[in-house]
Amino acid sequence: MPHLSVVGIGIGNPEHLTLEAVRALRDADVLFAVDKGDGRDGLMAVRKAVCDRALGDRPYRLVAIPEVPRDRAPKDYDAAVREWHAARAEAYADAFAREIGEGARGAFLVWGDPALYDSTLRILDRIADQGRIPLTYEVLPGISSVQLLAARHRTVLNGIGEAVHVTTGRRLLKRPEAAQSGSTVVMLDGAPEAVFAALDPDLAIYWGAYLGSADEMLVAGRLGDVASEILRLRRTGRAQHGWIMDIYLLRGVSELA
Amino acid sequence: MPHLSVVGIGIGNPEHLTLEAVRALRDADVLFAVDKGDGRDGLMAVRKAVCDRALGDRPYRLVAIPEVPRDRAPKDYDAAVREWHAARAEAYADAFAREIGEGARGAFLVWGDPALYDSTLRILDRIADQGRIPLTYEVLPGISSVQLLAARHRTVLNGIGEAVHVTTGRRLLKRPEAAQSGSTVVMLDGAPEAVFAALDPDLAIYWGAYLGSADEMLVAGRLGDVASEILRLRRTGRAQHGWIMDIYLLRGVSELA
Repeated sequence: MPHLSVVGIGIGNPEHLTLEAVRALRDADVLFAVDKGDGRDGLMAVRKAVCDRALGDRPYRLVAIPEVPRDRAPKDYDAAVREWHAARAEAYADAFAREIGEGARGAFLVWGDPALYDSTLRILDRIADQGRIPLTYEVLPGISSVQLLAARHRTVLNGIGEAVHVTTGRRLLKRPEAAQSGSTVVMLDGAPEAVFAALDPDLAIYWGAYLGSADEMLVAGRLGDVASEILRLRRTGRAQHGWIMDIYLLRGVSELA
Repeated sequence: MPHLSVVGIGIGNPEHLTLEAVRALRDADVLFAVDKGDGRDGLMAVRKAVCDRALGDRPYRLVAIPEVPRDRAPKDYDAAVREWHAARAEAYADAFAREIGEGARGAFLVWGDPALYDSTLRILDRIADQGRIPLTYEVLPGISSVQLLAARHRTVLNGIGEAVHVTTGRRLLKRPEAAQSGSTVVMLDGAPEAVFAALDPDLAIYWGAYLGSADEMLVAGRLGDVASEILRLRRTGRAQHGWIMDIYLLRGVSELA
């Protein structure tokens, strides 16, 4: 039965690969990555840099699975995501059936950590449930953007004995008061003007973009003091790269001290 | 000025070291780890195994900083933690002043990821603020127990488009209803009978102990069906090792499907 390692590769810096991730990439007969095809050529280049770092001079075969197009403004968000996952399960299963031979090993490169805001595991679960192709798989964690954000700001995510809330821009927009206390990490805040811009200016923000890459940007401070600078950097980044990947930590007023 | 790398080493498996962590350990003139001295000899052995994996046959110097005793049942929890941190800052600064020479490099081994429920960065922040000793430092993220739990269960932490709440047993005990919806990761649930045992039996639980080690234990299922088995394994683990480190993910009823 073919075996797949789902490998968290971190978010851009090949030095964030774990030793077991390096070994999984070396042991694989074929490597898979999803090609989002949205002009983020740099992201496929990073995956190649990761493979080069892990494999050195060894030749390797990196199969790009083209991303299934997605309805970005669906009426029913959850249903649209489920349909999208079904179509992706078909595409992934086809690629595995075609590319992983009997008894061979594959490695699936996942940005960041497969456990956080990534659908690869849901899709593999679905493929396994359907039993369309025989497949065993394991998961190797990778350094996530949440961790790198904290590391670059040299801060702990949680207040002493406090909780950490990891959420999305979309959810924060619906319940902005959730950021008022404790620690909130916001991922996937794709809105042009960003949700943080409308929050209590006395919150503390730790923001980062293009983390782990040479283009890394970092800003930290009282939200009211630094929000406009962050918005300016977001515009600069978008203009320069054509896309932005950023993330931020908010700390409630009570935890500023 | 001496330089310190704060290195997340994962939670037991040396193969979880990142490539940059390996390099930081190799480049260091002296390595530091906190010795909790609470009978968890196995934990110091794991740190040595991590150093051996990173450094191979190279000789290295691992300085154990004895943990400052802590009031485990304080009247004022926050104040007690702050006093404890102050005493630890003294102990750490003494060790750095004594062990890291002028222009030398140190590496501080931190269990898991320095950004999650670890006080090393708060202590270094305090030392830097006090200016008692000159020191620069950087943070290298490591694989946390949260990530390893999800990887071993081959699950995604968040529901689709949903948030993830990372909290402590102490906090969950005060607000058990918080686990009722969404995804909740509970760390540091040290109570003998564990907080989860009193929660809604229809919640889903993904539990793990001694993650990343040869003694790893995993249980997943409907809480009402598996809680007694988890409690039994916790007792077995405590009896065998003298301590337990476990963690679990709870998923609200609405997300069971």
